[in-house]
Amino acid sequence: MTPTRIAVIGLGSMGLGMATSLLHAGFEVAGYDVVTANAERLAAAGGRIAATPAEAASGAAAVVCVVVNAAQTEAVLFGPDGCAAAMKSGAVFISCATMAPDVVRGLAARLEAQGQHYLDAPISGGAARAAEGKLTILASGSAAAFATARPALDAMAATLHELGDAPGVGAGFKMVNQLLAGVHIAAACEAVAFGASLGLDLRKLYEVITGSAGNSWMFENRVPHILDADYTPRSAVNIFTKDLGIVLDMARAAPLSVPMAGSALQLFLMTAAAGMGRDDDASVARLFAMISGIDLPDGK
Amino acid sequence: MTPTRIAVIGLGSMGLGMATSLLHAGFEVAGYDVVTANAERLAAAGGRIAATPAEAASGAAAVVCVVVNAAQTEAVLFGPDGCAAAMKSGAVFISCATMAPDVVRGLAARLEAQGQHYLDAPISGGAARAAEGKLTILASGSAAAFATARPALDAMAATLHELGDAPGVGAGFKMVNQLLAGVHIAAACEAVAFGASLGLDLRKLYEVITGSAGNSWMFENRVPHILDADYTPRSAVNIFTKDLGIVLDMARAAPLSVPMAGSALQLFLMTAAAGMGRDDDASVARLFAMISGIDLPDGK
Repeated sequence: MTPTRIAVIGLGSMGLGMATSLLHAGFEVAGYDVVTANAERLAAAGGRIAATPAEAASGAAAVVCVVVNAAQTEAVLFGPDGCAAAMKSGAVFISCATMAPDVVRGLAARLEAQGQHYLDAPISGGAARAAEGKLTILASGSAAAFATARPALDAMAATLHELGDAPGVGAGFKMVNQLLAGVHIAAACEAVAFGASLGLDLRKLYEVITGSAGNSWMFENRVPHILDADYTPRSAVNIFTKDLGIVLDMARAAPLSVPMAGSALQLFLMTAAAGMGRDDDASVARLFAMISGIDLPDGK
Repeated sequence: MTPTRIAVIGLGSMGLGMATSLLHAGFEVAGYDVVTANAERLAAAGGRIAATPAEAASGAAAVVCVVVNAAQTEAVLFGPDGCAAAMKSGAVFISCATMAPDVVRGLAARLEAQGQHYLDAPISGGAARAAEGKLTILASGSAAAFATARPALDAMAATLHELGDAPGVGAGFKMVNQLLAGVHIAAACEAVAFGASLGLDLRKLYEVITGSAGNSWMFENRVPHILDADYTPRSAVNIFTKDLGIVLDMARAAPLSVPMAGSALQLFLMTAAAGMGRDDDASVARLFAMISGIDLPDGK
């Protein structure tokens, strides 16, 4: 029996991991990335490199799109050599980028009008979990989109949340998660700076807080980067200027005041403005240190 | 052998639970509270009611002070019928209220100058854990203060963090925890309001977020109050107007800008100003609902 073909567009750390999970599950994977070096990593893992998104999508049962934002997703679908014109009828586009629900609904309507399916499927979990096929996927879409996507989803996800029967709902849940994640990173950095200003032992502080009611998933995950003075980007400051920017745009449109997200966005923007946009998002702690002269660990 | 006597000043939900733990561990407990009904609950549990803080402290090896703030702690120690004049030489004052480190250092210096010990010992954990003797205590003080306090601490705490040899360090750790706790409650309420504005299923949102990177201890603990529309105070809005107020005062004195804590304080103050200061701190969600007209669960 010929293995089912899946296309993966966007082969950064997340997309490559997801493509690898699909290969391990027995799928034939055709991949595309604008960066040739990224595409070559797929070939090394056993996948096939396509020259365009359209070529990758041709003959595929599902197209998994793991790019950075709405503009890239639109280009992958409807730009020159885009997937929409090449996908076979009844195939599903699994869209993983973080986007506003309204944008998702617009892209889905355009694709579905021509006889293909759209699954709104933002992801959560880092590159390691992507490579293990253990992501969390926040999905919504038609029953047909779910049915067509399910074998690929099962290969990529440990937890599949089925959140509704229309695209846009998954995106809404993802944006709430990003609001909290961004606020908690900013708060973790502020709290470490505050503790440093009091002269507290910061490793002891980590131990105390992670066992107390002040803990968050982000505090526990990001503060070790500060303690080790390691700002190699696992997730970059610019991800949160983007995602909290979407949250603030959505809230302004509602209208709803979201002062916690607003303050967090300003801290990420200040950090990016200070030249650290591509560094790890825990760099917000270095912004506090720059401004106030407190001492953070130097990693030595 | 005569059991060791411990005084407990302040018999609210936390103080009563701690007094109960001390009784279970075999101590003789003398208690005082300005509210007679609170003191009577101690008598029902097997403790002795004292007419004044001084009377409770007389003959005690340790005085555990579980009042609300610095002003009350100062009154318990040095006010009319205060403990300081009644405590025997070498006894220890175990101070549990949340206070600024500078204030702690001032009270400790006054008490230690007259031959008694001061243990800076803010607590974490709710009333249930207090009654089970399973609190977390963030303690600092002299070796003599720790040695004298240890039997009582062992009866009250599951986790005793020994954070330094001078009063004020425990208070610093507690203030960092309160910064994070307050920010996380405000963020949880804002995120629920944002999700409601998107029309998301809020119980599903709770399930998704508690399994995602956006989770916090406070989100997990407080959002059920919103889902059940139960704003009976487990911990009140006014606790965070107080504690974040201390954080902002400390940061201003440093000087350090703490915009996340600043935004959270304004949300708690708005909630208190709207008449909900004595309600559960998850009432910040009701402030968002009042302002923006979103629908939160009505508990029916």
